[in-house]
Amino acid sequence: MKLATVIDAEHGTRAAVDIDGAWHPLPYGDVGELLADPAWTDAAAAAASTEPLADVVFTTLVTAPAKVICCGHNYEEHIRELGNEIPEYPTLFPKYADTLTGPFDDILIDDRSDKVDWEAELAVVIGRTVSRADKAEAAAAIAGYTIANDISIRDWQRRNSQWMPGKVFEATTPLGPVLVTPDEIDPLSGVDISCEVNGETVQHGNTSTLVFDAVTIVAYISQFTTLHAGDVVLTGTPGGVGAAMTPPRYLVDGDILTTTIEGIGSTVNNIRNAAAKEGKN
Amino acid sequence: MKLATVIDAEHGTRAAVDIDGAWHPLPYGDVGELLADPAWTDAAAAAASTEPLADVVFTTLVTAPAKVICCGHNYEEHIRELGNEIPEYPTLFPKYADTLTGPFDDILIDDRSDKVDWEAELAVVIGRTVSRADKAEAAAAIAGYTIANDISIRDWQRRNSQWMPGKVFEATTPLGPVLVTPDEIDPLSGVDISCEVNGETVQHGNTSTLVFDAVTIVAYISQFTTLHAGDVVLTGTPGGVGAAMTPPRYLVDGDILTTTIEGIGSTVNNIRNAAAKEGKN
Repeated sequence: MKLATVIDAEHGTRAAVDIDGAWHPLPYGDVGELLADPAWTDAAAAAASTEPLADVVFTTLVTAPAKVICCGHNYEEHIRELGNEIPEYPTLFPKYADTLTGPFDDILIDDRSDKVDWEAELAVVIGRTVSRADKAEAAAAIAGYTIANDISIRDWQRRNSQWMPGKVFEATTPLGPVLVTPDEIDPLSGVDISCEVNGETVQHGNTSTLVFDAVTIVAYISQFTTLHAGDVVLTGTPGGVGAAMTPPRYLVDGDILTTTIEGIGSTVNNIRNAAAKEGKN
Repeated sequence: MKLATVIDAEHGTRAAVDIDGAWHPLPYGDVGELLADPAWTDAAAAAASTEPLADVVFTTLVTAPAKVICCGHNYEEHIRELGNEIPEYPTLFPKYADTLTGPFDDILIDDRSDKVDWEAELAVVIGRTVSRADKAEAAAAIAGYTIANDISIRDWQRRNSQWMPGKVFEATTPLGPVLVTPDEIDPLSGVDISCEVNGETVQHGNTSTLVFDAVTIVAYISQFTTLHAGDVVLTGTPGGVGAAMTPPRYLVDGDILTTTIEGIGSTVNNIRNAAAKEGKN
């Protein structure tokens, strides 16, 4: 099953389900609200009797997660390019609901930083409350998988030991366009993940090489904080970030950032200078 | 003005205001909901015409903040006891709404860790939306001050570079009992802050020695993420944490943790072994 949060002229933002290649509307404000209904699989299946949507504009897959928790240092190649050792435990940091943005929205940069970097990531969306779970319980709590790009403001991230400031700039992390349920995708067996800037591949990896797979990360997080339906977990990025290039390369006005995961699709975001867009330059 | 979130038998949880030493109820579910009303100062003043509450039980001051952001390494003595340098920028990490607990609630520990440490902290509660603020705007966005204890699970905090896991165990951070508005308390000029375990003073500091004062932290956070009414900012802890003692000392079942800030009051929390409480031992 594939789910999305879409905007249509008549209803505003709402959840939708892909049935035989057509998107059918669901009476929920977004995928997060849908997943908060314990009967969400039945509710999605019931949409087959509705008229499909004529036009679909994808927006942020989950609009109001209470928790967005990200794992860093989780692909060996990326760990090595940063000069670090393979970690014993997942390295975790937060984002906020307002850090997220739509899968095809512009990402605005401005004079706060000229070190805006990419991080293509597989994201997990939680489908039921999960606390102190073993791996089987954690797996059962995963509603599905989607694409994120953990855009990182490197100078703000590295001002001291805690990365959070550089990870939570507003509306910088695209999430979507669709959620794919685990019966249709198996990241543990491996799906390709890549990131392109202006059509040039800068990252390419496979989720089979994750140090901590998605289920393991969810189980680990659930040991210290409860996750609920609609919460989001990012699983880390493969090698090839801009900060590790020689010389370092960062995103600039006009760049087109494409993040692709096999079996899910792509997000495509134009990088825009906010000041230029506001006509201040 | 002093505000609190109280539980009474008739109404459940709601906001209340102290008028001439008596607590008057307010038609808001908690202080966070009150502060989300732009007319909150008028609403609180209007409570003078209501009957005061006969019995008051204080609970978590803000029950559902979207953002709880904490500053570490912010008192020189604490920075030195950890062997660190005075930082150039605030060191920031998150908690969640469900990390918070009431000012007089038990704090449950269990077999996940035997390294549960105290950190007495001045907390800020935000009173209006604040984004990319200068210091004057940040000061105007502070509704008031309260007490927190940033209980830290040291082994989980130090598993790798990012502290988050050890900072977000559920229901471990007491917040309250009252919010004191800035016209009645001036942390920049300095108020005493202390922490006692079983009546023994383990931490004693003064907010005048903060490296980054409360207004500066709020202004800094607002550069990268918007804070809204009801959000909470913790400002760091003075020297004297258990992990820095020789030998290290941690909280155990039966300890009584008292956190006091001059002009606000105290939180008092009993440390209980969850397994013992559930009768599993």
